[in-house]
Amino acid sequence: MEVGEEIFRGEVWIKNENIAYVGTNSDIAEAGPAIPHIKWDFEIDCGDNLLMPGLKNAHTHSAMTFLRSYADDLPLSEWLNTKVFPYEAKLSSGDIYELTRLAVMEYVTSGVTSIFDMYLNPDAIAESCRDTGMRCVLCGNVNDHTSSPEKMADEYERLNEFNPLISYRLGMHAEYTCSKNLLERIAKVVQNYKAPFYCHMSETASEVESCKERYGKTPGLLLNELGMFDYGGGIFHGVHLTDEEMDILQEKKFSVITNPGSNLKLASGIAPVSKLIKKGFNVAIGTDGPASNNALDMFREMYLVATLAKIRDNDAVSVDAGKVLAMATIGGAKAMGLDDADTLTAGKLADIILIDLAKPNMQPENNIVKNIVYSGGKSNVLMTMVGGKILYHNGSYNIGERPEVIYENCNKIAERILG
Amino acid sequence: MEVGEEIFRGEVWIKNENIAYVGTNSDIAEAGPAIPHIKWDFEIDCGDNLLMPGLKNAHTHSAMTFLRSYADDLPLSEWLNTKVFPYEAKLSSGDIYELTRLAVMEYVTSGVTSIFDMYLNPDAIAESCRDTGMRCVLCGNVNDHTSSPEKMADEYERLNEFNPLISYRLGMHAEYTCSKNLLERIAKVVQNYKAPFYCHMSETASEVESCKERYGKTPGLLLNELGMFDYGGGIFHGVHLTDEEMDILQEKKFSVITNPGSNLKLASGIAPVSKLIKKGFNVAIGTDGPASNNALDMFREMYLVATLAKIRDNDAVSVDAGKVLAMATIGGAKAMGLDDADTLTAGKLADIILIDLAKPNMQPENNIVKNIVYSGGKSNVLMTMVGGKILYHNGSYNIGERPEVIYENCNKIAERILG
Repeated sequence: MEVGEEIFRGEVWIKNENIAYVGTNSDIAEAGPAIPHIKWDFEIDCGDNLLMPGLKNAHTHSAMTFLRSYADDLPLSEWLNTKVFPYEAKLSSGDIYELTRLAVMEYVTSGVTSIFDMYLNPDAIAESCRDTGMRCVLCGNVNDHTSSPEKMADEYERLNEFNPLISYRLGMHAEYTCSKNLLERIAKVVQNYKAPFYCHMSETASEVESCKERYGKTPGLLLNELGMFDYGGGIFHGVHLTDEEMDILQEKKFSVITNPGSNLKLASGIAPVSKLIKKGFNVAIGTDGPASNNALDMFREMYLVATLAKIRDNDAVSVDAGKVLAMATIGGAKAMGLDDADTLTAGKLADIILIDLAKPNMQPENNIVKNIVYSGGKSNVLMTMVGGKILYHNGSYNIGERPEVIYENCNKIAERILG
Repeated sequence: MEVGEEIFRGEVWIKNENIAYVGTNSDIAEAGPAIPHIKWDFEIDCGDNLLMPGLKNAHTHSAMTFLRSYADDLPLSEWLNTKVFPYEAKLSSGDIYELTRLAVMEYVTSGVTSIFDMYLNPDAIAESCRDTGMRCVLCGNVNDHTSSPEKMADEYERLNEFNPLISYRLGMHAEYTCSKNLLERIAKVVQNYKAPFYCHMSETASEVESCKERYGKTPGLLLNELGMFDYGGGIFHGVHLTDEEMDILQEKKFSVITNPGSNLKLASGIAPVSKLIKKGFNVAIGTDGPASNNALDMFREMYLVATLAKIRDNDAVSVDAGKVLAMATIGGAKAMGLDDADTLTAGKLADIILIDLAKPNMQPENNIVKNIVYSGGKSNVLMTMVGGKILYHNGSYNIGERPEVIYENCNKIAERILG
């Protein structure tokens, strides 16, 4: 497995929630007696397979699992107004807890070790992630209908102290779901906490146009003028960013989180990823919610980032696989404020996955990184560990509940709400 | 599982290579003693999972597995001329046999029950598919360098009689790899056998432009004038078809086989699938070869057909999931001349797959067909059966060789050839 400097044969030791040691076989042989005697609780023989940092799903709405495949192949406006918003209003906090558990099951099968989740009822999401063991960064979701700056400030204070697996970032849904007055109040909270800020932005061309009609400027200019960008953060989508907006976001050290699967299925467009990379942006990758994707599969998203860039730029060289794998790991961690979960390094969080290379789609081993991005998938995920705890291994889940129970509960929720 | 008329609870009985009976549970209960006494060799309890016709991979070059992830993120011309053609010339028939076995392993994990394979040395491919149990339609591959009309005619006679799993269709590589004289000689073979004809066509814009420079017309007009289209057949890719070519191909009852993954990765473009459907074409789906895709995963291709149509047409309604699933099963069978392998019907070939619905990506069951196309993947394939023989079940292969041996051999071939 001598493919590139970064891939080596060796061992990773884990203590509690952290990586305690990473060394090559020869490091370990050389060190010999210098390595302290350690009593293992257990050991996993990874064979010829690949241990790597877990994938970071940097934008999702997990509990939308109840809408999966309910309303596809529809125009965006009809989809949102007749198939999403009316049904979301019927969700209880218990529903959101359970629907998030279903999403967590899919995340762990896809090698995802942390999610950046924006949805109704962050408390229910936090409890669901704590109980299943998933690392979750919650994102504020202020809008005219379901949340407020005061609620966000309260959530920010409480949920950042809730559990080591959970953190919370300031955020709103989007310019087009917030009145001018609300935007100004959100900006005050950002200025008050001097904290990074996140929102959907420039997902569709019509969203940008409607903002220009309302304010005479694109959303990036508007939000920046309001002071929302002053302490960094990130925008979700960014399909239709102008050069002027890119310059502002870059100056403010914003990340851009791209969601290619959702943007395809809703016909929103293809994000300018190669341009963002050239400009030096930190780019991360998200699945978006299961209502619009419909899978929660970071392998598919990685593949789409690499290949859609080629079709957008009309250039097969555009955005290579190695860059994309870095976006899905290091880039995601940076965008989510999880700098201690980005690489396989002693002292970092043990958010780790084991990739099965002994599958036909990963052979021959001409280039393991390109195999992962262009051929890899859920069927290659052998093990997913978050904070030192194995949540998924050889097809079995360790998330505090039996799969059948979660499936049954989620089908009942879907039936009750969708009728 | 009462989703749509076509999905029901029932039983499928198989005798030798065929489906002997398909009935709902109530059919069976009503028929009672009228059903003849049958002694089963074995029975599979499919539980709440989905039995469906196998997926047809209607365009591939299986043995290109040796090049997987060897030369990605390169311009098409550099890729072909420096990374593909020189190395292909080094392949022995034994190499092709072995590299095809690796591809067959991946096909069965992806629910593929038949392939339409165009590559060097069809005899080696035929032997490999016979020995692994994969149904294979071979496609003539005439070009200026590696095959000839005489060789194709000989293969057509011999390989159509070789084995029940194997058939052979007349075909050439493409207009741009054949001289005018060769094209005329190929056309004579088509006229002689009065048989359907297949080739790559209109994959890239530059291919179409160069044909116009050479002949003053697009490839579809040229090949039609030579008489190649007179007995039906199909074209692979068709990304850059003109309206005039579509009219001709439709009149000649041609299928169009789309290969979205490969077209993305090589930046060739997005095929006009919704337009082809509106015009009444039979559209089928292929993975293309593993050097350009790089996976051999019909789930990914189905997803791409549905979602890329939406981005091409700027319309989230374009090409719905049900149509795409039909392309990957019935459409593929029709394009490949496998009309007896298209549906779950008594008397048809038992080319069947079992889809695991008890996975988080397939829940809740709002719409099983849309779940398959938009969320499904290799990890949902429980069983793949070709001609009544189970080739893959619960992660184990039954293809006449142990996976480790095939991996080792294919890595050795890649190392020997690529150095």
